[in-house]
Amino acid sequence: MRKRRLFTPGPTPLMPEAQLALARPILHHRTQQFTNLFLETRSNLQKILHTENEIVILASSGTGAMEAAVSNLLSQGEPALAAVTGKLGERWLEICDTHKIPCTALRKEAGEACSADEICQALENHPDTCVLLIQACETSTATSHDLGPIAQSVHQSFPHVLIVVDAISALLTQPLQTDDWGLDIVISGSQKSLGLPPGLSFMSISPRALDRISDHTSSSYYFDLSAEVKKQKAGQTAYTPAVSLIDALNETTREILRQGPEQILAEADLMSRCTRKALLELGFSLLSSSPSSAVTAAFPPEGVSATELVKKLEQEFGIKIAGGQSELKGKIVRIAHLGYLDLVDVFSVLSAIELCLLMMGTEIEAGSGLRAALLEAANGIDVSRQQNNHENPRH
Amino acid sequence: MRKRRLFTPGPTPLMPEAQLALARPILHHRTQQFTNLFLETRSNLQKILHTENEIVILASSGTGAMEAAVSNLLSQGEPALAAVTGKLGERWLEICDTHKIPCTALRKEAGEACSADEICQALENHPDTCVLLIQACETSTATSHDLGPIAQSVHQSFPHVLIVVDAISALLTQPLQTDDWGLDIVISGSQKSLGLPPGLSFMSISPRALDRISDHTSSSYYFDLSAEVKKQKAGQTAYTPAVSLIDALNETTREILRQGPEQILAEADLMSRCTRKALLELGFSLLSSSPSSAVTAAFPPEGVSATELVKKLEQEFGIKIAGGQSELKGKIVRIAHLGYLDLVDVFSVLSAIELCLLMMGTEIEAGSGLRAALLEAANGIDVSRQQNNHENPRH
Repeated sequence: MRKRRLFTPGPTPLMPEAQLALARPILHHRTQQFTNLFLETRSNLQKILHTENEIVILASSGTGAMEAAVSNLLSQGEPALAAVTGKLGERWLEICDTHKIPCTALRKEAGEACSADEICQALENHPDTCVLLIQACETSTATSHDLGPIAQSVHQSFPHVLIVVDAISALLTQPLQTDDWGLDIVISGSQKSLGLPPGLSFMSISPRALDRISDHTSSSYYFDLSAEVKKQKAGQTAYTPAVSLIDALNETTREILRQGPEQILAEADLMSRCTRKALLELGFSLLSSSPSSAVTAAFPPEGVSATELVKKLEQEFGIKIAGGQSELKGKIVRIAHLGYLDLVDVFSVLSAIELCLLMMGTEIEAGSGLRAALLEAANGIDVSRQQNNHENPRH
Repeated sequence: MRKRRLFTPGPTPLMPEAQLALARPILHHRTQQFTNLFLETRSNLQKILHTENEIVILASSGTGAMEAAVSNLLSQGEPALAAVTGKLGERWLEICDTHKIPCTALRKEAGEACSADEICQALENHPDTCVLLIQACETSTATSHDLGPIAQSVHQSFPHVLIVVDAISALLTQPLQTDDWGLDIVISGSQKSLGLPPGLSFMSISPRALDRISDHTSSSYYFDLSAEVKKQKAGQTAYTPAVSLIDALNETTREILRQGPEQILAEADLMSRCTRKALLELGFSLLSSSPSSAVTAAFPPEGVSATELVKKLEQEFGIKIAGGQSELKGKIVRIAHLGYLDLVDVFSVLSAIELCLLMMGTEIEAGSGLRAALLEAANGIDVSRQQNNHENPRH
């Protein structure tokens, strides 16, 4: 019996609620039944994103939503600034290029995040900038931006600059206070923490972003956010929605709200901490100086090929982790903490990594990575229990 | 996200092939389509049981098949001998009692198996014995009988004694050469290694067992093996079959034959060896002196309550293992290696056990159990690969 186990930053293991919903007979979208389902789903997404902003759901990958934001907020020639910390950051530049939008790149070394100061400095150097484009988590380098302070500084010094956040992998793995932090557009997709197959993206849009969008003509036909907002407020979509996926999104968002987004965030945090402790103990080194809880990226120990390790995990144990992209290809491994995964899964992938290293003849102390992870977990669970006890003294 | 993970000796995690088959529209049983499916399924079971004997599939739990064997092979007053090594062994006595069949018990201490010599001695002491009733694996104590030598000795010295084997949990976890060893009836069920829900039992019946059955009047109405054999040879059943479960059984047996029963057996062997090594390292002691590969039973370390450990694994990690039954209740834990499980799952349950022990304040060296399991696994995988290389020199 060889199981297939995904520890990739998308697709992620499906939530059972999604699988069951996808197995249901399909419903038709031009019905009251769909409208009710759609409106409830939008409301669930608002709660998960901590926002009262309008929500738009698109039949596209996350990249589609990124293009929708850019091509609806900015007209040809209107300048943007992109925080470019990896492959996804580069994507802002490519999208802007397609739409003839001049975009300045604030580039960092792989694994480094932009600070609030660096962003404000770049905005000062480019005072015409209308929109800041930024990843909450740069998936290719497993690096988080500390969005709260960044948004606060930008709003304070550059109140006219809109903030567009790619939170595709960051959703439910790092804090995202859309309204409190004044994030104008926050984008995510179905195939990460929501435990759905790829095929859906969605975003929240602030009132002032909506104003700007309605003043602009979209340079994309399919991604026309003015048209979508108008339709979607009323529980319909401009073009054929991915009905089954929305049905499944309704189920998984409902389940996530039942479990509590804060709880899921805390679990992702614990999973990533255990993973980092174990990898460090085994002689890996972390790529990121601002490590995300969505995914962990690390260089393997001396003498171990990242490519071989990725391949061996799949061949021997059916475990799929990711390698590096672009210039990091063949250099790092990436292990995601996204989707229908729990702490026990972390021990699964870590055990398999230790076994592969042993089988490859790497000089490691067997069980040492797992020991580090166990101690971190035991500690983390105790801490979170004390916090829960504090909050619910009756338990 | 709290997953539900079963490490119980039934139900076991379902194979994906079973889940998909169960989600299909149901077919009607009085059709050629069902007949074809049924005949193919019987043939698959023959291959898995290494037999050309007739196969009967029943809509019942394994206990139903045990009663069917007893009540069709033996008439009131005809004596049997049961090897009683635990709760399932006791069940032979209870069934015989119901059907007024005098049954001698060859009893052993919990965790001990009967040897071929002991069984032959008991048969010598009771020369009228017609049928030997025995568990291949006594699930309640995780103890295997070494069936090959037992069958050989019995056939040699008592050629008239028929051998009825409960292989409910033993199927695909220990060798079972039905025809080579001359096992007259071999019983199993759906909810163990076959990765199906409970609801189906099945058995193989040798020609001489068939002769005996046709000479007897069944003392059960529902479990009339003469009637069933006659019908089932032709691809139908005496009473309404559990159609969906048979559809699913067809899929899982086909998949098992594709993977190779020997491969699954080797995996269960490795899983159980890793589990035993880890538990011993953590201060557990094994119940059985003849440990099975279907399930591992162990007393927890000094000061740890088995009941509390079982409960904590479920509460904290959604992992369900079994406790003890009857006089072993509250004393042992039982971890199954049955159904849709692989080596990585073994590391999951072992990690969770170590974590629970740490959280319960038990004095263990964190990671030491996992280290023992890792080393056993690394060694076991290397050995099995060398064997495969030997058998398939081209790979």
